[in-house]
Amino acid sequence: MSLIVQKFGGSSVADAESIKRVAKRIVETRKAGNDVVVAVSAMGDTTDELLDLAAEVTPLPAPRELDMLLSSGERISMALLAMAIKSMGHDARSFTGSQAGMITDATHGAARIVDVTPVRLREALDEGAIVIVAGFQGFSRESRDITTLGRGGSDTTAVALAAALDADVCEIYTDVDGVYTSDPRVVKKARKLDRITSEEMLELAASGAKVLHIRAVEFARRHGVILHVRSSFNNSEGTIVYDPSRLPEGAAVEESVIAGVAVDLTEAKITVVGVPDVPGVAAKIFKIVANTNANVDMIVQNVSAASTGRTDISFTLPKSDGERALTALSNSQETVGFTSLQYDDQIGKLSLVGAAMRSATGVSARLFEALYNAGINIEMISTSEIRISVVTRADSVHAAARAVHTAFELDGDDDAVVHAGTGR
Amino acid sequence: MSLIVQKFGGSSVADAESIKRVAKRIVETRKAGNDVVVAVSAMGDTTDELLDLAAEVTPLPAPRELDMLLSSGERISMALLAMAIKSMGHDARSFTGSQAGMITDATHGAARIVDVTPVRLREALDEGAIVIVAGFQGFSRESRDITTLGRGGSDTTAVALAAALDADVCEIYTDVDGVYTSDPRVVKKARKLDRITSEEMLELAASGAKVLHIRAVEFARRHGVILHVRSSFNNSEGTIVYDPSRLPEGAAVEESVIAGVAVDLTEAKITVVGVPDVPGVAAKIFKIVANTNANVDMIVQNVSAASTGRTDISFTLPKSDGERALTALSNSQETVGFTSLQYDDQIGKLSLVGAAMRSATGVSARLFEALYNAGINIEMISTSEIRISVVTRADSVHAAARAVHTAFELDGDDDAVVHAGTGR
Repeated sequence: MSLIVQKFGGSSVADAESIKRVAKRIVETRKAGNDVVVAVSAMGDTTDELLDLAAEVTPLPAPRELDMLLSSGERISMALLAMAIKSMGHDARSFTGSQAGMITDATHGAARIVDVTPVRLREALDEGAIVIVAGFQGFSRESRDITTLGRGGSDTTAVALAAALDADVCEIYTDVDGVYTSDPRVVKKARKLDRITSEEMLELAASGAKVLHIRAVEFARRHGVILHVRSSFNNSEGTIVYDPSRLPEGAAVEESVIAGVAVDLTEAKITVVGVPDVPGVAAKIFKIVANTNANVDMIVQNVSAASTGRTDISFTLPKSDGERALTALSNSQETVGFTSLQYDDQIGKLSLVGAAMRSATGVSARLFEALYNAGINIEMISTSEIRISVVTRADSVHAAARAVHTAFELDGDDDAVVHAGTGR
Repeated sequence: MSLIVQKFGGSSVADAESIKRVAKRIVETRKAGNDVVVAVSAMGDTTDELLDLAAEVTPLPAPRELDMLLSSGERISMALLAMAIKSMGHDARSFTGSQAGMITDATHGAARIVDVTPVRLREALDEGAIVIVAGFQGFSRESRDITTLGRGGSDTTAVALAAALDADVCEIYTDVDGVYTSDPRVVKKARKLDRITSEEMLELAASGAKVLHIRAVEFARRHGVILHVRSSFNNSEGTIVYDPSRLPEGAAVEESVIAGVAVDLTEAKITVVGVPDVPGVAAKIFKIVANTNANVDMIVQNVSAASTGRTDISFTLPKSDGERALTALSNSQETVGFTSLQYDDQIGKLSLVGAAMRSATGVSARLFEALYNAGINIEMISTSEIRISVVTRADSVHAAARAVHTAFELDGDDDAVVHAGTGR
């Protein structure tokens, strides 16, 4: 008998009808002879509605109370889901984060899982019940308070349960058929991937692909959990996210050079103009930025102009961090000694990800050539072992993605099917 | 320093504005130098909305899951209330039923409190925090599951907390100014009582007065908790509900003969016609009725007609229990041997309650005379030590209440102020 963990997001349980549909799917998995553990998000927009309610009461809600408030959302969806399953004649029991043994640190709103002690879940499974667990929430042993894991937390809950229960697979149900070579809304010829390594998935998620949360993928990789990303709207096989180093000897499969092309339009670029080209200045600048908790991504330093002894430093960061970073830098203009600041929120980032890039040669050249042929100017470049990212103008990054997708022979034969709505 | 427990019902915390108003009131109590523990119900119609949602999923929700579902309502209100208080610069912490140590048996939907272990509440109080507790919910040690106490459960939560924490008073905030000599919507001249004994309050609640739940009053009496029923819309003193036997020697106050007149329109009358007048038949009938879990109130047996050796037995019960009882009796017609059944749901019950009735004489005579003068026919009579109840036609019971209220000199000088809405 296999143990399968299934995760359903808010859009999959948005109303009573959807809950019954999901219940039916869970029962089918059970009938096929599997033990089933389900992690479920709050219904539809519940979390946002609760946040609105809190905002009406106070502009700055106490974090402990905000977690208490938000954790009510999954209690509603999980209880309804368990009821629906029971009404179909199968035993089901719902468990809160703390009942499920989801132990976290005491960081409200962004708690880290420190331990999972699923004693009650095992008991329920042994008694033949389907187990429903509240996603997104946990319990701090230290403060004895209820915590939440932050956005995308339900994916992480599912993966943590799969790891703790040694599940055979963790199925992440979403509103797309799986992981695509690129966003099908941008690149019509995007292909669904049958499998992708967790390393590639991590880079894609970090580069703007939204199908899985980076934290859940990291957790899965660290604990050897196999993910299956699939649609809750049909029964097609989705995409398996796996760690090739954990495959048994001889089971290795040939990897394609490129797994996918990701696009990110959420970043902005700050250029610090006329920085004195002396040691320690860059460190000073990025210390100032780091103190604002801004999440710096790419950094480029121009060659110093010999005549002035000054240089420009550009970096990208999430637009939402832009204002804080600019203010902090502006306040330090005299100490750092730069000339001026430029802010550009009309940039797009394109990333090419593939594990086989390590051994393949000429990938960068092929990328730059494709962009050149499409008439797209590159403003910044950064690379990791299995990724190349370039910054372009925002309004040309989609065209860039299509050109690169074609150049690397990723195009499928048919246009991809795009469902409405997005999961959480 | 006094410890005050305050209970706010759903209508007092129906929206963000109301929650802020209640928070202000709590902070005022704290500023006056008191430790404050608050029991709060779910916002407005939340509980009914959650019940509707469950009904959309399944007509027969699993009780364990229904409790899990409903318990989310108070988590929302208590978290928002704690946030509101914190934003006013006072420390506040919310606790679920299980965090508050509200231990119950495992009867979902109608759990009984078996123990209260408010360890975390005492800690929070010692640290100077205002404590907010979810009303209506508890935790079963036996099943380790979340339970709810049933309708009116938040009153019971407040009283149980007051008992466990040895509070000086338990304030029940509602949408009326206190306990009245009769329902001010029926009897315009009804007067607010400054105080009432818990025994009288129990009889009034059992006779249809809705201001307090009978279970909470019972709990208060058993544990010597002084209740203060007051309005959340003004600062007037309300009604103190106390146990005279617990007053210190010499502190006894003179009691008025009659505390109040209650009206109940929720009952129906079943008459079993032509019952053989032999021993054991009545026992047979009421065993059949009891097996349907119907809550029999008044019972009257007519004098047997010598010619037939048969008699009629009438009894009242909640209308909601009527159909079940009728069906069960109907199925047993042959074994019991009665002639026919009559069902009458057009009855009203008027009850006169007063502790001093014990020693006062002529109360019944005065009651019957008042009804006779008002031209109202009495169909059934039942009495307890401190109560007389009569059944009349439904459409004359309000006139009856007004007549009796005047006859017993309960009328106030002014018309009572009636607020909109009703508490839970």
